[in-house]
Amino acid sequence: MIYFDNAATTEPYSEVIENFYKNSKEQYFNASAGYLPSFNLFNNLNSFRKQIIKLLNGNESDNIIFTSGATESDNLAVFGSCFNKQKKYLFSIGEHPAVYNCAVNLRERGYNVEFINLQKNGQIDYDDLQNKCDSDTCFVSIMSVNNETGAINDLKKIRNILDQKSPDAVFHVDAVQSFCKIKLDVTNCKINLLSVSAHKIHGLKGVGALYISKGTKLKNINYGGEQEFGLRSGTINYPGISSFMEAIKVSSLNQCENYRKVLELKNYLLNKLKNVGKTVKVVSDENCSPYIISLIFEGNRGETIMRYLESRNILVGTGSACSTNKIGNRVLHSIGYSKGEILGAIRVSFCANNTKNEIDIFVENIKKYFEEVNT
Amino acid sequence: MIYFDNAATTEPYSEVIENFYKNSKEQYFNASAGYLPSFNLFNNLNSFRKQIIKLLNGNESDNIIFTSGATESDNLAVFGSCFNKQKKYLFSIGEHPAVYNCAVNLRERGYNVEFINLQKNGQIDYDDLQNKCDSDTCFVSIMSVNNETGAINDLKKIRNILDQKSPDAVFHVDAVQSFCKIKLDVTNCKINLLSVSAHKIHGLKGVGALYISKGTKLKNINYGGEQEFGLRSGTINYPGISSFMEAIKVSSLNQCENYRKVLELKNYLLNKLKNVGKTVKVVSDENCSPYIISLIFEGNRGETIMRYLESRNILVGTGSACSTNKIGNRVLHSIGYSKGEILGAIRVSFCANNTKNEIDIFVENIKKYFEEVNT
Repeated sequence: MIYFDNAATTEPYSEVIENFYKNSKEQYFNASAGYLPSFNLFNNLNSFRKQIIKLLNGNESDNIIFTSGATESDNLAVFGSCFNKQKKYLFSIGEHPAVYNCAVNLRERGYNVEFINLQKNGQIDYDDLQNKCDSDTCFVSIMSVNNETGAINDLKKIRNILDQKSPDAVFHVDAVQSFCKIKLDVTNCKINLLSVSAHKIHGLKGVGALYISKGTKLKNINYGGEQEFGLRSGTINYPGISSFMEAIKVSSLNQCENYRKVLELKNYLLNKLKNVGKTVKVVSDENCSPYIISLIFEGNRGETIMRYLESRNILVGTGSACSTNKIGNRVLHSIGYSKGEILGAIRVSFCANNTKNEIDIFVENIKKYFEEVNT
Repeated sequence: MIYFDNAATTEPYSEVIENFYKNSKEQYFNASAGYLPSFNLFNNLNSFRKQIIKLLNGNESDNIIFTSGATESDNLAVFGSCFNKQKKYLFSIGEHPAVYNCAVNLRERGYNVEFINLQKNGQIDYDDLQNKCDSDTCFVSIMSVNNETGAINDLKKIRNILDQKSPDAVFHVDAVQSFCKIKLDVTNCKINLLSVSAHKIHGLKGVGALYISKGTKLKNINYGGEQEFGLRSGTINYPGISSFMEAIKVSSLNQCENYRKVLELKNYLLNKLKNVGKTVKVVSDENCSPYIISLIFEGNRGETIMRYLESRNILVGTGSACSTNKIGNRVLHSIGYSKGEILGAIRVSFCANNTKNEIDIFVENIKKYFEEVNT
């Protein structure tokens, strides 16, 4: 099987599964209990927090909250930052549903919510941000890498705009598609909140984290045993978190090499696609993350192509698999693609274990598909 | 090591870990993606829902939502049922923090919240419920088995009161300490919402579920990809859920036998404690779940006893390990125990794998503790 849907989820590293296995057997204690085996887990968790903060180039006094995944991290970041209906809350229109649907809910509840448009290249429209940011703006949420197009938003440029127009606004970044893939620097970009997920970097499902910079005011959005500094109640999933650290270790150690490999795969794919004999529009330009490539086969249905490829044991995506399908194509639509173009879209998303040979087979089958369609 | 803190968390069954291992390796797909391997997971999830519903004696058209654990299930049950500030919301004062702290938050937000007192035996005061229930009552949350005392609330009796006084109220039951341990019947007791957790029945942490009876109005409390019928967004943790089903299978198959074993352990313990030569108050009477035994060594500190036992490789609890310690002893206090008594409390909680030999060692060490204290 050829798996080209790594933006939806990834195959866990064997080190990750082994780590989970071992910790589930040996370290099953409740980390909040009052005896030494639990204190040890608690200390390990604090060391894990420090490791993630260091990786993000944060400061010692910053914090990490472990969650059940990026959706929870995003919900905590957005709703945990809502203190005042009079203030302005800004979101990019291209956000993942885990942020976008929080924004829609806020607006429905009477909060002052505005959306930042996207440019043709998939990045946010920085001029639009500049225009909408003002001294009333208290919260800005803009993702690092878009999950459908791979577009990389320039977080430093965004920070400069915020410094100029809304220096006190809380800056939240959904970094699910960039964590351990492209460089993130919370200090340089003065990021207040940053969401990450384990299962997008070959960790397990059900585990995520939220980075919180020192001094960032955040309230809890769930209630219970007040674990995680009172910000996230619920028995701590120690084996899951420990295996997340294993995924982070392997992914971050190989981050540069993986990036190079995947960039080579992307370039190889785009080159090969030139010979398909069919006009293929590449949504994801050379500035995008190489991990995610959105392609448009105009006049065709992406879903049909996906099914055809699936019947040949090749799995690709048609959009955000993180959502049930009714969301549709907000991102491509916001970029300016027509309904016809959007219907012809598929998403190819790589991991470093994919190969050129797999791309050969993929392109061969795309060619075959068009041959069959045209006969 | 002797582990007598099974109400805090349990050691996962090896079948559970093996199931997780296998599914993480082979079935890592995003269950919301649009290809067959994902559809298969989706179908399995629906079959899992049916199995849990059947086990609870629910109806085919009832539903199960998988969550990250009982805290999330409880939060969804409570906040998802809040539609009207004018109506009355009733909670037992003995609820786990995952319910109790939701209730406190509701009250802070101006909802009409009232608490039902406890009797000396740890069960709710049914007369108090009868008095507080009225036609304005829209939501009643009463746990099945108390996590600190093991007291079993009579759900059928509660249902009869509701039928009489508040027939339209939504009835939520936190069944974390009874699921797969004592009989639960959602049809007989007309339960609308019921929360369960995997890691309390030898499953993994980070997995839980909420049962929802047909026709029960519930709104989502998080936002995102709208998985789980729009009620719980976030990538579905298929391997975790699948391993939860394994824990349910093993636990429910052996439910009667395990109950018998654990009841024997409880009786054995209580008999042996009579010879300790120290007044031990047993909070958990013969009507309580045998899995949880709350003991009071008056004039002593439970925490000191716990530490002493720990130094001899015996782990017991001092209270709800599901919470950071500041919650204190709301439950024992509500039952009517004095501060002095509460300070002397420890919680022994069994699983079916515990043995009489372990109890012998436990009691021996309790005796030694008092010998040392008195010399």
